[in-house]
Amino acid sequence: MNETIQTMLQHRSIREFKERPLTREELEAIIQSAQAAPSSSFVQAYSIIGIRNQETKEQLAQLAGNQPYVAHNGHLLVFCLDLHRLELAAGLEGVPVEETLTALQSVETFLVGTIDAALAAQNAVTAAESLGLGTVYIGGLRNQLPQVTELLKTPDRVIPLFALCIGEPAQPSAVKPRLPMAAVYHEEEYRPDLSHMELLQAYNGQMSRYYTERTAGSRAEGWTGTIARQLKNPKRLYMKELLGSRKLPLS
Amino acid sequence: MNETIQTMLQHRSIREFKERPLTREELEAIIQSAQAAPSSSFVQAYSIIGIRNQETKEQLAQLAGNQPYVAHNGHLLVFCLDLHRLELAAGLEGVPVEETLTALQSVETFLVGTIDAALAAQNAVTAAESLGLGTVYIGGLRNQLPQVTELLKTPDRVIPLFALCIGEPAQPSAVKPRLPMAAVYHEEEYRPDLSHMELLQAYNGQMSRYYTERTAGSRAEGWTGTIARQLKNPKRLYMKELLGSRKLPLS
Repeated sequence: MNETIQTMLQHRSIREFKERPLTREELEAIIQSAQAAPSSSFVQAYSIIGIRNQETKEQLAQLAGNQPYVAHNGHLLVFCLDLHRLELAAGLEGVPVEETLTALQSVETFLVGTIDAALAAQNAVTAAESLGLGTVYIGGLRNQLPQVTELLKTPDRVIPLFALCIGEPAQPSAVKPRLPMAAVYHEEEYRPDLSHMELLQAYNGQMSRYYTERTAGSRAEGWTGTIARQLKNPKRLYMKELLGSRKLPLS
Repeated sequence: MNETIQTMLQHRSIREFKERPLTREELEAIIQSAQAAPSSSFVQAYSIIGIRNQETKEQLAQLAGNQPYVAHNGHLLVFCLDLHRLELAAGLEGVPVEETLTALQSVETFLVGTIDAALAAQNAVTAAESLGLGTVYIGGLRNQLPQVTELLKTPDRVIPLFALCIGEPAQPSAVKPRLPMAAVYHEEEYRPDLSHMELLQAYNGQMSRYYTERTAGSRAEGWTGTIARQLKNPKRLYMKELLGSRKLPLS
């Protein structure tokens, strides 16, 4: 087991950071690692917005559901799907915008940009953790995207997907047990449901013990309980409409 | 610059592999690293299908556009968005399926699962490369998804997103220059277009030299040229319909 794999296996989200800002060297190593990630057909369809300004951080923290670590960290990165740059590129080549719309508005291109952004982000996480820093993704950034896009001045076809808080950990945190490998990793073809169900039930016991220990018994939910609760309470149902209003109708 | 960051910065796609199959130890380190990636609200909404069977590999290679390295590698992984497992989880908790549909069919949940799958996949890439193995993502897996889902027996709400070929590199390959950091990394807010255009033009020169050197002059396209060509030739426009037919109408 080498150091790189050890770094990844030791990943846990950090939700309390020291106030020390990242150095320029740390930041550049993280962004360069992000950019070194593969990109579908080399479109590099994402942008990263780095936030140091405390007031902007406070506003984003509030918009993302009042998570204090969004305001208090060493650096805050916002990862965006960016199809606007592709538009500019085609414009530079003299291609009329109408000839690009079918591609730009497709589910396929949306998927490509979203995957590109996530691959880059995960390299950023690994780079940060290899430097002894902690991280946490903020999906809550999507809670109120109209306000976020206004604050960050993102043009149409640029969608902030999630944020990433980075900084020196100020809090101990444990690695959370993942689904059993046999529930996630299938050999040759997708596995039938029966063994899947048994694996999920075994995992419930494991997660329930994990939460019980960490919350002194106040939370003892299994994994399927967490999932059921989430599915009964759907989030961010405005997303399709928001994307349409930003010229991404997903056709 | 530590070893982990060096590994990521040295990433280049490998398109020719030795036939040596991955060992069980290599495979487990790669899958465990993938599973250690963060997951939005811990939903872990992805599955990985590992293919060793040569016939299946050949069929997938053909479906993905006749790329020989899809058939010839040390191991082939197919990363899938998996909302079917969430359905099973809610079922185990006795939640009627109708109460889960709004969440399961939403753009938001589709986004969550797609990002989860990509984060896991990028950890797999970093793990493999840290072991001295090479990798290449196969977006062409989406060329003919109905046939792919039939071959891999994926149920509704499980969508193969891309494949990842892994193996011992049998071919030298160079790191491709990325967009300038200033074109991708914005400080405090999204950058206005003017400097963006200048950066893209400078990058065109760099990419054109890169391709000229590597193709003995037969390809000298700049980056914006590549993008314009791609946007004029939209791919996989059946994706929205395909998702609808798999009970993911993206509402």
